[in-house]
Formats: sequence, C-alpha cells, structure tokens
Amino acid sequence: MPEVLSGNAVVFTQGGPTAVINASWVGVVEGLKGAKEISGIYGSINGIDGILNQNLVDLAAQDPKTLQAISRTPATQLLSTRHKPTEEDNAAMLVVFKKQNIRYVFGIGGNDTSESLDIIRDAAVKDGYELRFFHIAKTVDCDLKENDHTPGYASAARYVANALRGCDLDNQCFGGFYLAVCMGRHAGFLTAASALGRVEEKSGPHLVYVPEAPFDIDRFCKDAWNVYAQEGRCVVAVSEGIEDKNGTPILQVLSTGKLEADSHGNVQLSGTGALADALVGKIKEYFAGQGVKNLRARGDTLGYIQRSFPDQSPVDREESLGLGKFAAQQALAGEAGGSCAIVRIADAPYQSEFRLVPLGNVAGKTRHLPAEFINQQGNNVTPDFIRWGKPLIGELSPVGILDMSKKIAKQ
Amino acid sequence: MPEVLSGNAVVFTQGGPTAVINASWVGVVEGLKGAKEISGIYGSINGIDGILNQNLVDLAAQDPKTLQAISRTPATQLLSTRHKPTEEDNAAMLVVFKKQNIRYVFGIGGNDTSESLDIIRDAAVKDGYELRFFHIAKTVDCDLKENDHTPGYASAARYVANALRGCDLDNQCFGGFYLAVCMGRHAGFLTAASALGRVEEKSGPHLVYVPEAPFDIDRFCKDAWNVYAQEGRCVVAVSEGIEDKNGTPILQVLSTGKLEADSHGNVQLSGTGALADALVGKIKEYFAGQGVKNLRARGDTLGYIQRSFPDQSPVDREESLGLGKFAAQQALAGEAGGSCAIVRIADAPYQSEFRLVPLGNVAGKTRHLPAEFINQQGNNVTPDFIRWGKPLIGELSPVGILDMSKKIAKQ
Repeated sequence: MPEVLSGNAVVFTQGGPTAVINASWVGVVEGLKGAKEISGIYGSINGIDGILNQNLVDLAAQDPKTLQAISRTPATQLLSTRHKPTEEDNAAMLVVFKKQNIRYVFGIGGNDTSESLDIIRDAAVKDGYELRFFHIAKTVDCDLKENDHTPGYASAARYVANALRGCDLDNQCFGGFYLAVCMGRHAGFLTAASALGRVEEKSGPHLVYVPEAPFDIDRFCKDAWNVYAQEGRCVVAVSEGIEDKNGTPILQVLSTGKLEADSHGNVQLSGTGALADALVGKIKEYFAGQGVKNLRARGDTLGYIQRSFPDQSPVDREESLGLGKFAAQQALAGEAGGSCAIVRIADAPYQSEFRLVPLGNVAGKTRHLPAEFINQQGNNVTPDFIRWGKPLIGELSPVGILDMSKKIAKQ
Repeated sequence: MPEVLSGNAVVFTQGGPTAVINASWVGVVEGLKGAKEISGIYGSINGIDGILNQNLVDLAAQDPKTLQAISRTPATQLLSTRHKPTEEDNAAMLVVFKKQNIRYVFGIGGNDTSESLDIIRDAAVKDGYELRFFHIAKTVDCDLKENDHTPGYASAARYVANALRGCDLDNQCFGGFYLAVCMGRHAGFLTAASALGRVEEKSGPHLVYVPEAPFDIDRFCKDAWNVYAQEGRCVVAVSEGIEDKNGTPILQVLSTGKLEADSHGNVQLSGTGALADALVGKIKEYFAGQGVKNLRARGDTLGYIQRSFPDQSPVDREESLGLGKFAAQQALAGEAGGSCAIVRIADAPYQSEFRLVPLGNVAGKTRHLPAEFINQQGNNVTPDFIRWGKPLIGELSPVGILDMSKKIAKQ
C-alpha cells in the first residue's frame, strides 16, 4: 500500500493566465479539504516566488462561497511568474518546504512549469526530503504531450471561435479582406479554433494558417485572391508564430524595425499589432497588382483577451476543476507524483477522463497540431479538426441567416 | 386624424455593424406584419444600394423562427454600405419607390444615415410623391443627439467592459503596463465603458482617455508612472480618436509612416495596431528614464470585434427590437416620419422609453461624452458615468477575490 504523507500542501500557478486556472487550484483545495493527513493548504503567491519568499496564503481559510466565485474568475488569483528556478532557488525552496512542513506541491502551468517541478523534485530526492509533486496541465496553446487538450484551451478556443464568427458576419456587410492574428507561437490549436465558429459552408475564416505549415507570403496572397474572386470577400486567421520554410518567424521576415524580445529571449509576438499590419499591407499590394486599388482591408490582433475573456467553456470549467480534484485524490491515494492529463474517451457524446503520467513525458516537450488537422495545401483545417474541437467549446449563441432567394421582382 | 398611406415598406441598414442591428429590422417587420395598409415588407440589400439596384428581399416571407434567430445575430443580414446618396441617386431612388409602390422607408444607421434620409425625403417632397421616412438610431459610438444611448452601444460596451475586466485580471498576474485601444473617433462613450467592468476600487483600467479631453503624451506617461509607482502595474484604456490640444489625432502625431484614409477621407483608426504600439513605445521610453529598464508593457487594439461580438446586452437587445417595433407603430399611426430615439426615464430600476424626434435634430450632428462623465484631470471617468452605464450592459459573470490577509506565518 502506498504511504500517504502527513503535512502541509502548497499550490502555485505559473506562466501565462487562462480563463480556468483558478478553477484548477480551487479543485485542489476542494479535493484536499478535510483529509486527515493534510494539516494546511497554502497558496504560493506569484508562482514559485511565493515559496522562496514564504509569501503563502491560507486557502483552507477562504470563504467557500468566495472560492466558488474565484473558480469562475479568469486569470489566477494566486498571481504568476515566468521565473524558472535555478539550483540556488531549488536549495532555498527545500529549506522552506522543511520549515513549513510542506509535503505536497501542486504546480499549475505549462511545460515550463512541469520542467521546473521535475528539477525541484530531483533536488528534493537528492536531499532525502520526501515530497510529492503534482503538475496540473494548463495552457491556452494546447501544446502539452499526453493531453488530448489542456485546461484553458477550450475557453480560449471558445473566445476565438466567437470572435471570428462575429468578425466574419461583420466582414460580410461590406466585403473586402479581414485578417485576425491569433495566439500560438509553435502550436496552431488556438488559431485553428477560429474555424469552430463557422455558421455555414461559405462562412469565414476562409483561410487558416498555423505555425505547423510553412507560410509563403506569395502563396498567401494568391489564396486570398482566389477566395476574394469567388466570394467578394475573404476572412483569414493566422497564428502569431507562422514561419517561413526556413523556420524564420514571418513577423521577422516582414519587419523593418527592431523587434522586442520576451523574458525567454524569444521575439515578442503578442502585445503588438505589427504582424497583422504587415500582412494586410502585403495583401493590399497584391490586390492592387490585380487591379483592385481601394481594397477594404483590415487586420486585428486578438491579443491578451484570448486567454482571459470572462466566459469559460463549460467543458473547460468542469475539466479544470476536476483535474485539480483528481490531483488531490492522487496525492491522498499515496501516489508519488506526476503530471495530471486529460484523455479523451469519446467524441459524441463527448467524454474524457484524467490520468496521472510521468512528469518526464510532459516536461519541456511541445505537442503540435496533428497532420490530419491541417489540409494538404496548408491553408485550412480539416473536418477532423472540427470534429475534435466542437465538443470542447460549448454551445455558441444561435445565428439566423436571411433567405436571400425570396427576391422581390424588379419593376 | 393622420392619414395612413397604403403601399409597401422598405427597410435598409447602413454604416458600421453592431450586435443588434438585425434586432431593429426584425422589430420593424414584427411591427408592420399584418397591418392592412402594408402590402409588402422589403429588405434592401447593402443599404441604399439595394433600392438603387432593386435588390430587394421579401422579409414578410421569411420563416418567423429564422427571424427570431436573426434578431440574435450580430452585424446585419441586410448587409451594409457607406454610400452617401448623391442628387442623382435620390432621383433614381424616387423612380424605384414609385415603381415598387414603396410608401414607407425605414433606415437603420448613424447620423450619416439620418442625413441621407433627410436628403431623400426632401427630394421626394419636392417631387410631390408622398413617402414616410423613419430613422432608427444605431451606432456603437453612442454619438447621436436626442438619444440617452443608441442601439448597439450597450452590447459593444458590454464587450469592452468584459474585455478590460479580463485583461486587468491578466495584468495583475505579472504586473507591468497594459494598454487597450478602444473604438471611438470623436466620442469616448465606448472607451469609457472599459471602466464598467472594474471589480474593486483598485481594479483597472486605472486611466481612461477619451477624445473629448485633450491628450498630452507627457502627461499620459506621468499618469501611468504614478499608478505604477503605487500598484506595481497600470492598465489603461484609450480611444482610437484621442487628439492633442490642437485637435491633431495622436496616431498622426506619433506616426512616422503614411496613414491610410477611410472611405470618408478620414485617417483610418481601426484595423491597425499602430496607435497601441506607439503609445506602448512612449511608455517604455519614459519608464526607462525613471530607471525601469525592462518594463513588461503590452498594447492591444480591441478592433472590429467590439462591435460584432456575439453577446448582446439584454437591455440592448430589448431596446433595439423595441425601437424597430416603435418605428413601425409610428408609421401605422400615420406619423409623417422622424428619428426614433431612446430616452431614459430612470436609472434604478432602469427604465427607458422611445420617442419620435425631428430628423433634423439628429442628422449630421455629433453628441459627445458629457463633461460630468470625465474627471477634472481628463484621465478617467466619473462615478456619474458608472451610474449611467451600469444598467445598460447587463450582469457580468461573477468574480471572486482571494483574501490575501489570511497569511501563513513565516517560519
């Protein structure tokens, strides 16, 4: 029988926010509450920094009604950091774990976080201090191995599907070209979700470009022109991270000025409208060359709101809360730790279950959009993707289409 | 007794989409249906262009269930145009009105549309052909005279409030600076709505800049610095149309390249991320001068989604549908025409009523954010604005705040 350690538990949240991170840590609290082995449930403020600084909040002492409201609140009330622990940090955290009698660590984050947890665990094992580590998946990018999808993805996908549905109906009113840049540096799952809001076959987005398919600017202009020639309009979704065939980000290819780097040294893709503006510029040039001089062409960058819009997908909410509870149950069952993943059982009716997998299977690895979700030309998603994505985002509001065949005769 | 003309009715929609234009024309159809004087209810496709080309759809023949779904659909299923009628157009439309026995014209649009209607009416009167014109207010900008607010505004305001609520909770996780550019060329109502999603007193947006208050770049940097010094972060909402004290758009002041013009010859403000990028650049410069070298600073441009997100405010939906019906009722009561406006009766509980006002009171005029809605420093909205705006946007989803006072003692 596995041994259940007695002591305190700490939960932290790390990396970029999603609409359901709070649901996951509230799930952990609900799962641990009342267990005789757990004396205290602590929230570490600002990811691992709260452990290092002993900036810990008593989560068991929070009003249950407030916890329920928090579970519906986007972003994370435990705040975040992108701080990756150094060896010194690991040693310092171990000291805190011992002082605070912490025996359980729940880390909610992406693969950076699972990597951090892996490193901290190794340090603890080497030291002989028994600690149990549970990673709870989270990322709007959906790019974690072992997961059918990650908590946070479905709500962001719901937003992107809704946004493109609205912008497509908007574009229809005047015609012309519209482009939306969606989040996703290396994985195209979120951009692909733009197709989940299509109302009918001829609805936009008519073209979808993801980082997994090499992006060719000329090909893109031609694709858009072909759609425009047929429909009198064209709506496009592209990932912020689209790259040319050499792996150079298109933002870099098209950029004339200096590009900002983020805290990991990567070119900053979010929080700037540069890619949308540059691609719209290319389209205007190309269309002018085809004789369309005053093309109405607009580009939006969907931005941070994709990950934090206050509208959780029902499946996402339930799974995120459930995954937190599952992690707690695994801890109380004496499991030594691992990464808590979502596995799909069935598409229709949709059904999933949770599984504890080795941390090493997830840590530092990136999952990509499967080849069968991208069409041959690399400019759209496939019906397989639609089938996969639809159950995740929940019902969208109903749309009615005017029957234009009921014409009044000309006089 | 006013005379009720017998004949056909036509409805068209003009200008930028909103989330509830369809509700307004469905309201017109519902209001006219079954009236013995009205033989046909026609929808003109692409605004007045559908009248000029006799591109007319039978709205009375649409499936009532579809009409209900259409009334919940953003943008306009009658499509749109920004075409302002010339004298020749007016003459050509009169010919169509006569041929098609059209006696009632319902135009849904902003003040450009009311101006167009005014001109068409004058042409008809001169010609001696009796026509009744009803303008139904519509614009997310909320900038029409005689209206407490316009159909379309409340849903766009709901989106902006939700978006800034989400982005503020997001910004809280890492700190730093975040800026969102909201729609509004001359009127700051929509940008002001960013404040309607504040969760608590210290919530963002901490600063709100509207076109009605002259924008000073240095003052803006200092304002942001002051908030940052106190909160470790700063969230800002600005209107796309902010101007300096000479009335020059800030986008133009900060721009190095050539600016696009829209179809009215105005500098194109929407559909580009340039203003957000430029303001974030200014903030980085200023903060670096204050010793903060690696400020996390991001800017989003909310873009077209503000006006077309598929999430109608309940008040907006009810009023837009109601205003369409009201216009139909006025027509059936024999009124000669005018603009249908929303007048507020009470704040709490919120109550409004509809009124028919002379077209000339609305046509070609712009309403601005009242002085009492902007604070003295010109960098925020007042409690008066919050009181005015809250009932319009409907309930937002609940937010829970962690009680950080329940600290775990350091060991």
